[in-house]
Amino acid sequence: MSHNEKNRISVDIYGQSYSIVGGESTSHIRLVASMVDDKMREIGSKNASLDTSKLAVLTAVNAVHDYLKLKEEMEELENELKKLKD
Amino acid sequence: MSHNEKNRISVDIYGQSYSIVGGESTSHIRLVASMVDDKMREIGSKNASLDTSKLAVLTAVNAVHDYLKLKEEMEELENELKKLKD
Repeated sequence: MSHNEKNRISVDIYGQSYSIVGGESTSHIRLVASMVDDKMREIGSKNASLDTSKLAVLTAVNAVHDYLKLKEEMEELENELKKLKD
Repeated sequence: MSHNEKNRISVDIYGQSYSIVGGESTSHIRLVASMVDDKMREIGSKNASLDTSKLAVLTAVNAVHDYLKLKEEMEELENELKKLKD
């Protein structure tokens, strides 16, 4: 599939349907949606009083935190690689 | 600061206050919150009809997508590193 082609697919996240458009494969979009759904259910099971909106914000907070941690690891790896190449 | 120490800090995301607890530094938590806030405002400005809950879910989708892309890059880097070490 061409990377310039845009896919529009419908996914279910936490009981709500979303139409996602992007240059990614449908399998990638489905994987992302299922990870968000899983994380919302996990956070929701521990915090029954949270409404969907707060639950989704905390899921986003969680994902951005994971992203930044991975970015730190990546920078360490890049430094290691740079040293080996020098 | 000890990494075992838990911090509870209050952050504002999209006009709502959240209490975040974690072993991370307050500056890290504040950075994560401001990134989520920025992303929600960015998505919201392009989709004025979305309610906060859908906006937050799409922000989480976005963050998980970025995470997976970074993970792919990381795996490539790890393979490169492995080859150089072998």
